[in-house]
Amino acid sequence: MEDDRISLAHGNGGRFMRELIEEVFARNLVDSDLDIQADAVPIALNGGEAMITTDGFIVQPLEFPGGDIGSLAVHGTINDLAVAGARPLYLTLNAFIEEGLEIALLDRIVGSLAKAAKDAGVKVSAGDTKVLRRGEGGGLYLATTGVGVRLAGVRPAMNRIRDGDIILISGTVGDHGTAVMLARQDFGLRGDLVSDAGPVTELTESLMDFDGLRFMRDPTRGGIATIAHEIIRATGFGVRFEATIPVKEQVQSVCDMLGYDPYYLACEGRVLAVIAPEQADEALEAWRAIPGGRDAVRIGRIVSNMNRVILETTLGGERFLEELEDDPLPRIC
Amino acid sequence: MEDDRISLAHGNGGRFMRELIEEVFARNLVDSDLDIQADAVPIALNGGEAMITTDGFIVQPLEFPGGDIGSLAVHGTINDLAVAGARPLYLTLNAFIEEGLEIALLDRIVGSLAKAAKDAGVKVSAGDTKVLRRGEGGGLYLATTGVGVRLAGVRPAMNRIRDGDIILISGTVGDHGTAVMLARQDFGLRGDLVSDAGPVTELTESLMDFDGLRFMRDPTRGGIATIAHEIIRATGFGVRFEATIPVKEQVQSVCDMLGYDPYYLACEGRVLAVIAPEQADEALEAWRAIPGGRDAVRIGRIVSNMNRVILETTLGGERFLEELEDDPLPRIC
Repeated sequence: MEDDRISLAHGNGGRFMRELIEEVFARNLVDSDLDIQADAVPIALNGGEAMITTDGFIVQPLEFPGGDIGSLAVHGTINDLAVAGARPLYLTLNAFIEEGLEIALLDRIVGSLAKAAKDAGVKVSAGDTKVLRRGEGGGLYLATTGVGVRLAGVRPAMNRIRDGDIILISGTVGDHGTAVMLARQDFGLRGDLVSDAGPVTELTESLMDFDGLRFMRDPTRGGIATIAHEIIRATGFGVRFEATIPVKEQVQSVCDMLGYDPYYLACEGRVLAVIAPEQADEALEAWRAIPGGRDAVRIGRIVSNMNRVILETTLGGERFLEELEDDPLPRIC
Repeated sequence: MEDDRISLAHGNGGRFMRELIEEVFARNLVDSDLDIQADAVPIALNGGEAMITTDGFIVQPLEFPGGDIGSLAVHGTINDLAVAGARPLYLTLNAFIEEGLEIALLDRIVGSLAKAAKDAGVKVSAGDTKVLRRGEGGGLYLATTGVGVRLAGVRPAMNRIRDGDIILISGTVGDHGTAVMLARQDFGLRGDLVSDAGPVTELTESLMDFDGLRFMRDPTRGGIATIAHEIIRATGFGVRFEATIPVKEQVQSVCDMLGYDPYYLACEGRVLAVIAPEQADEALEAWRAIPGGRDAVRIGRIVSNMNRVILETTLGGERFLEELEDDPLPRIC
C-alpha cells in the first residue's frame, strides 16, 4: 500500500480509516469541535437543541436480499440518531447517479427509500442530484443527513461506561455483510440469507428509561469488534466478549470458507448496548419483547484489568480480536 | 439519448433534470411534502423552526482558480440557506473518496473547506467518509447538508413575485463555469479568470429589511436563464432580461468561441433578486456598498404579457432564452 494515497483499507471502519479521519478531517476541522466518536451530535438552534448525523452509502449490488441502497440509507441514518438517544424526524438526500443507470432501477430505489422513511416517520425535507459521467461512478451513491430531537431519559455516551458493565446485542451479527457478499457473487457462493437492515428505533427507545444504560451503537462497518476497540480507546477499559455472540449458521459457514471473522462484519439493524450489571437482565427482557430483539443476548462485559478486546471461545480458550487493518469488504454499506 | 437510462443531461440543471426530479424523486417522496422549488426548507424542531438544505459536489478539477471542491461545498450550501433568508449555522459533510487519491490533495481540500466554514461562521458538526474502488469515482465527491435559522424580515419565496417587479444581479455571470472549463483544459484554452465562488450571506442579509423583496436565488447549474424558467413555471409570468446583464470580456470570448451562452453558465457567488420596482434602486445601492456587490446592476423585469424568457439585445432586438436541454457541462459544481 502506498502511504501517500487513499487505499480501500481507508474505508473499512478499522485503523486506517480512523487515522484518516483523525489526521485529515478532525485535524483540519478543529474549529468545528467535530466529535468523531459520536453517532449523532447535538446542535443548538433557536434556544433549543436538535441532534444531527450524516452517512454515505455505496453498497454494491444496489439491491440485495432484505433491502437496497435506498432503504439502507434511511435505516443507516436514523439508526445513528436512535443509538444516540434521539428520535429521527427529517432526512436530506443527495444522489450521485452514474450516466447509464436504468431509470426504472433508480425509481425502485427511490420508492424503497420513500417507503422506509414513511414507515419510520421521517420526512425527506431536501434533496439534490448530481450525474456522474459513465465510468466515474458505481451506479449510484447516496448521502443522507438525519435530524432529530433528543428523547427524555438518559444520554447514552461512551464516557458513561464503567468497569463491570454488561454488553448486550439485539440479534445475530454479520447478516448484512454476508448477505451483500453473497448477492455480489464475487465468491461463487449462493444462499438465502437476508440482510438484517432495518430501523432500530424501537430497540433504542425501549432502553431510554434505564438509568443504568451507558452507551448504544449500531455495529456497521467493522462490526462489533470495531465498536469494542472504540470503547477501549475512549475509556481505557478492556472488552471481554463471551462465547455467546449469536452468529447464524450460514454466516459462520461463509466466514469459515473465506477466512473472515463474523465479529468484523457489518450489521445494519442491530444494537450493541452497554448497561449497568443490575439492569442487564431487565433490559434483555425489554428487548426480547420486541420483534427486532427476540434473539437479544448478553455477549460480554467491560473489564479493567486489560486494555484489549478478548474473545472467549466455546472450548474455554480465549483470543484477542485486533483492530481491523486490511481485508476490507468494499462497498458493504 | 436512451430514454430509459440516466444521461449527462439529467444533471445539467435544465429540462431533463427537472423531469427526473419531478418524476422519480418528488413522485416517490410525495409523503414527505418535498418542496423541489425551494433552496432551503423549514423544519419544525422542539417547537421552533430551523432551515435545512443539501447539495452534492462533483466539480472537476478538484482545485480551480478561485476555489476547490472543499470551499465550493461550503459556499454552495450556505448560499442556498442565505437566499432563502436564513443564517447558516451548521454543516454535515460526506466525502466519497476514490482509491488512489493523493492524501496531500485531500488534506488541502479539507483544510480549505474548514477555512471556508470558519470564515462563514458555520460549524461542521458531523461527517462520514466512504472509499470508492479505483475507477468507481472521480477522485472526490462531497455532499453537504446545511442547517440554519430564519432571519427576521421578509420570507423571500417565488410566490411573492408580482408583475412589474425588477430583477437584480449582484455581479457578473458565468465566471465560475468558465473558470472551471478553462482549468479543465478540455478545450485547449487558458486564461487568468477566477471563479466567483464565495459566500453571499452579506448580500442576502442586506436585503432582509426590504419589505418589497420577493425572491432571491444563487444562479448555479443552468445559470440565470434557468432561474428565469423556474420563475415563469411557478408564477405564470414572463421574464424580460435587458441588455445590461454583466458578462466579463473573457467569459464572453470563451462563450463565443465554444458556442455557449453565458446566461446558462454557473455562478457560485452571485445573487439574483426580484424586488418591487419602488425599492429596486435602494436595494442596488445597498448591494454596491458591499465588496461582493460592487458590480450589482438591474438586469430585467417580470412581465405578464408573455410566458417566456426574453433577452433584449444591445442592438435593440430580442430573442428567446429556451429551457436548457442538451449541451451539459458536466462536473461544473
